[in-house]
Amino acid sequence: MGRKIKFSLLYRDMWQSSGKYVPRLDQLERVAPHIVDMGCFSRVETNGGGFEQINLLFGENPNKAVRAWTKPFNEAGIQTHMLERALNGIRMSPVPADVRKLMFKVKKKQGTDIARSFCGLNDPRNIIDSIKYAKEGGMIAQAALSLSYSEVHTIDYYVDLADQVIEAGADEICLKDMAGIARPVWLGKIAKRIRDKHQSIPMTYHGHAGPGFQVATILEACRAGVDYIDVAMEPLSWGTGHADLLTVHAMLKDAGYDVPDINMKAYMKVRSLTQEFMDDFLGYFINPKNRMMNSLLIGPGLPGGMMGSLMADLTNNLSSLNKWKRKHNEPELTEDDLLIKLFDEVEYAWPKLGYPPLVTPFSQYVKNVALMNVLQVEKGGERWSMIADNIWDMVLGKSGQLPGKVGDEILALAKKEGHEFFTGHPQDLYPDELDTFRKEMDEKGWAYGEDDEELMELAMHPAQYRDYKSGQAKADFKAEIAEIKENEASGERAPTDKKAAVAPLGATPSTMNIDVNGEKFVVSVSYDENDPSPTAPASANQAPQAPASSNGSGSGEPVISPLEGKFYFTKDSGDKAIQVGDKVKAGDLVGYVEAMKTYNAVKFDQSGTIQKIAITNGADVDEDDVLVILG
Amino acid sequence: MGRKIKFSLLYRDMWQSSGKYVPRLDQLERVAPHIVDMGCFSRVETNGGGFEQINLLFGENPNKAVRAWTKPFNEAGIQTHMLERALNGIRMSPVPADVRKLMFKVKKKQGTDIARSFCGLNDPRNIIDSIKYAKEGGMIAQAALSLSYSEVHTIDYYVDLADQVIEAGADEICLKDMAGIARPVWLGKIAKRIRDKHQSIPMTYHGHAGPGFQVATILEACRAGVDYIDVAMEPLSWGTGHADLLTVHAMLKDAGYDVPDINMKAYMKVRSLTQEFMDDFLGYFINPKNRMMNSLLIGPGLPGGMMGSLMADLTNNLSSLNKWKRKHNEPELTEDDLLIKLFDEVEYAWPKLGYPPLVTPFSQYVKNVALMNVLQVEKGGERWSMIADNIWDMVLGKSGQLPGKVGDEILALAKKEGHEFFTGHPQDLYPDELDTFRKEMDEKGWAYGEDDEELMELAMHPAQYRDYKSGQAKADFKAEIAEIKENEASGERAPTDKKAAVAPLGATPSTMNIDVNGEKFVVSVSYDENDPSPTAPASANQAPQAPASSNGSGSGEPVISPLEGKFYFTKDSGDKAIQVGDKVKAGDLVGYVEAMKTYNAVKFDQSGTIQKIAITNGADVDEDDVLVILG
Repeated sequence: MGRKIKFSLLYRDMWQSSGKYVPRLDQLERVAPHIVDMGCFSRVETNGGGFEQINLLFGENPNKAVRAWTKPFNEAGIQTHMLERALNGIRMSPVPADVRKLMFKVKKKQGTDIARSFCGLNDPRNIIDSIKYAKEGGMIAQAALSLSYSEVHTIDYYVDLADQVIEAGADEICLKDMAGIARPVWLGKIAKRIRDKHQSIPMTYHGHAGPGFQVATILEACRAGVDYIDVAMEPLSWGTGHADLLTVHAMLKDAGYDVPDINMKAYMKVRSLTQEFMDDFLGYFINPKNRMMNSLLIGPGLPGGMMGSLMADLTNNLSSLNKWKRKHNEPELTEDDLLIKLFDEVEYAWPKLGYPPLVTPFSQYVKNVALMNVLQVEKGGERWSMIADNIWDMVLGKSGQLPGKVGDEILALAKKEGHEFFTGHPQDLYPDELDTFRKEMDEKGWAYGEDDEELMELAMHPAQYRDYKSGQAKADFKAEIAEIKENEASGERAPTDKKAAVAPLGATPSTMNIDVNGEKFVVSVSYDENDPSPTAPASANQAPQAPASSNGSGSGEPVISPLEGKFYFTKDSGDKAIQVGDKVKAGDLVGYVEAMKTYNAVKFDQSGTIQKIAITNGADVDEDDVLVILG
Repeated sequence: MGRKIKFSLLYRDMWQSSGKYVPRLDQLERVAPHIVDMGCFSRVETNGGGFEQINLLFGENPNKAVRAWTKPFNEAGIQTHMLERALNGIRMSPVPADVRKLMFKVKKKQGTDIARSFCGLNDPRNIIDSIKYAKEGGMIAQAALSLSYSEVHTIDYYVDLADQVIEAGADEICLKDMAGIARPVWLGKIAKRIRDKHQSIPMTYHGHAGPGFQVATILEACRAGVDYIDVAMEPLSWGTGHADLLTVHAMLKDAGYDVPDINMKAYMKVRSLTQEFMDDFLGYFINPKNRMMNSLLIGPGLPGGMMGSLMADLTNNLSSLNKWKRKHNEPELTEDDLLIKLFDEVEYAWPKLGYPPLVTPFSQYVKNVALMNVLQVEKGGERWSMIADNIWDMVLGKSGQLPGKVGDEILALAKKEGHEFFTGHPQDLYPDELDTFRKEMDEKGWAYGEDDEELMELAMHPAQYRDYKSGQAKADFKAEIAEIKENEASGERAPTDKKAAVAPLGATPSTMNIDVNGEKFVVSVSYDENDPSPTAPASANQAPQAPASSNGSGSGEPVISPLEGKFYFTKDSGDKAIQVGDKVKAGDLVGYVEAMKTYNAVKFDQSGTIQKIAITNGADVDEDDVLVILG
């Protein structure tokens, strides 16, 4: 019998790579004992950033959820692990050091054994902070190397990074292949060189199935000395998710490795419970496309888990682009055309942006810049004319050091726009904040919670935590589900992965025999595409409505929205910063459009006096909506 | 640079593994030049059994299609290959030797370079006949080893089989992994041992993606000395189909192999044309489930390409099983329950049936027996109580020798039912027939065609060829497409892989504002599940209707249909063999139900006089329909 290979079930990531949500706590508690019974898992991935935020979105307490969900695994001697983003903690933006430290302490107390820490830029300074904090909190510090495949992401680069984090005290190494682009032989060489230098360090390979390399890469990883393999299981394996337990198990067993037996009766129970959760409500949030493999992802190297939001962005932007094309008598693009152009542009833009590893949030940043570039160029404009603020932060070094050199055209643009590069330790830009949050809790009479877990939660996710506390989150979530179910019943929404596919409104049977008040009619029904349907659903997020429109309202020069999104006068969703009567000049800030997880600054392009503010703070805006009128 | 690896594009199989049809000739002629332009293919799979039959179903001439479709590849120096089933030629049942010989001659003249020949039982006698006939016809004889994974399908078994066919003159070897179950290391060992013994024989690995091993298996195959890798491409790669060109290419390039460059512009053109063909009409016949990977297929080892028909069989049988369950106050089963039971039963039944390799048609046979077993057992009956005639033929050795021993319970049953085992050369059971078909053509005034290709076509597919000649096939196909398009427009049919998913009838918007003759109404519509919908589509195959029903018609003992299917008094769809007034005894033959590609004999289970024949020849019957009344 060969070497022992152990499995970890990605019961968090397998949901989040497929759709928006993870199961509710009551569902997790039902499935946990059966996962234990399967008998083949040494580890289970229980929580992480998305997990916390989804609980808050459900209006539920993530602290309670983590404690209850890790408990059965703790009791069964199965290790639990979470994913965290180093400088970004378990959110999408940098986190003060005191909040990061508290997070590890809290998560350990709650039952999470292992912190898998990655820095989206592979900056060892950020990862090493996490290693230090995790160990102080009593957790096992697993340092993750985020894998991209390029001329700068070489075998030497990763082996060197592993050396640095192991030197700094990492207990374990994770080869994190978030886009599934690790070529099998290449990954095998990396793992082998790390294993040769660090004989006893536990190593995990975490891959994604999307581009199709994963199973081959797992075999190479095992041959090179990896100990733990992350897997998913039916009905949420493959596609943008992960290789399936059964496949990996059968392959490794045939190859002579010592792998644990699978209790197939328990497997079937977990499988059918997971399907039940999807049929309950989670399937509404799973795009069927995410269930498929996609080799076109190899070129751009983007994580498959991004495809859902990427396709949504594409659809939104395509319609406004084609509006422009029609207006200018140019041929329209199909969604497919735009996707291919986007992938090509990612391949072009990524090196210029300094080759950030394509992982959250930087994969989104690269995709957003590329999409903006494509849209601008398609409209006869210039590349790089719309770079969001947090993308500038990445370019300028405020999140850490980029693996590659920033391109000359970006450097010139930075100079022209007066951006300053930062070479210090990124954490230094984000001073401690716990005292501020303690003060807020004291004032509101909120308890810090067991092990200060509520304080940690507020400090990590302030806006979402406040919505959870107020009950707004739960109300919003219930309304969202109710609306979807109602729309499904009335045939207006495809329930994605739920069993019955239902019709878009236009697909209503054209001729029906209908009984009205006892009288029989043969009726033909059609909906004019240009008229709003009589049963068109109200948007879930109607308030605040964008009062703006490009027709009328004011007689001066309109300042129009450059893209679709949510408009804010200031980046942190605060009050308006400009007033009617203000004198402004070209280059002054109008506000920000939040789109695709980035903040895009909107600036005045001429001087004048503000005659009318046609937009309210937080409103949804379309491209070309009037924001402000200048006199 | 490492060893050269060459690619073959499975432009036939990638369609047929996903859905029912392949593109029409006009479509194939459009895409061919761009496949040539891709510059990375040494070979293209152009035709085979399914290809011919689909052309006939389209009402088109397969001979013209093969000539026109292979031409651009012939001119570009790209080799073309076809798949054929040895004793079964390019159909589902045994073919006379003279027809087989003519087939190879014709296909070579038409432009097909390579015959890939497999016997569904891996009986070397059948494969060796094909090798001999192919070489006589001027084709390259590629002998395929059909891979299953079991205690009888060992490495020695396959190496020995390869030795036998190479000894008999095979020009090439294909490792045919039709179910994608070849474990990577296992397959690598088989390929290595064949390579070590036969240094210069060209070897191809043909796999399927479904269970997830394929990419890893490809890497092992290349390491072991395989020369050609079969691939598919977007948007029809993965799922029940094959690994994608881009993935395999990137993996092998990284691993140091010498692989040809891909012209990505041409790739995008082929990709978008393929998508266009799907959007035209082919997508109607692609089950979206077939686009997904499925690790549950590892257990039963069934080819993923069977999943479409398997799920349809399951749905049909589930409803009648649940009718029975309700009647007997037993809990109903879900489709998922039945699928799992079926997979378990396949694992149980396969060894007892002598481990036929799980490839067409034997994979269907094993699945059918397993499904019948499950249904019988679920209704409190016995296993093996319904074994179709052609399954008996397989068990008895009439198609060749089974790799394993037939189970004792089957042997006992054979003895009880008086079945005789056959140990001779299977081809001997099927005498030459060309003269009969020459006579038919002479009588009808039909030309034998260039190189006797029309004679070959009639002899290979008599019924379908006659329908093609009469114009019936084209009319049927046009009617089928028209019906689907009409149903799609009226919202009654999900167009599967076409872009918009449409509603089943029950999902009609429940409340609508409707204008009838200028008068406005708010109308609620619902359809009672038990009432036929007012707009329920007429079946495409209404004639002949089953006049039978379990209510009334005669006062004697009813003989009821044991399963759903098409009823024939004799197996070859001939006239009725029994008459009212006939005296029959238990064990006499009523007729056959054709279901799931097998013929299931129906026998009288008591003696009596036929009082009424409640069924017409060729009628669709449901389970429990009355066939005959005995007095």
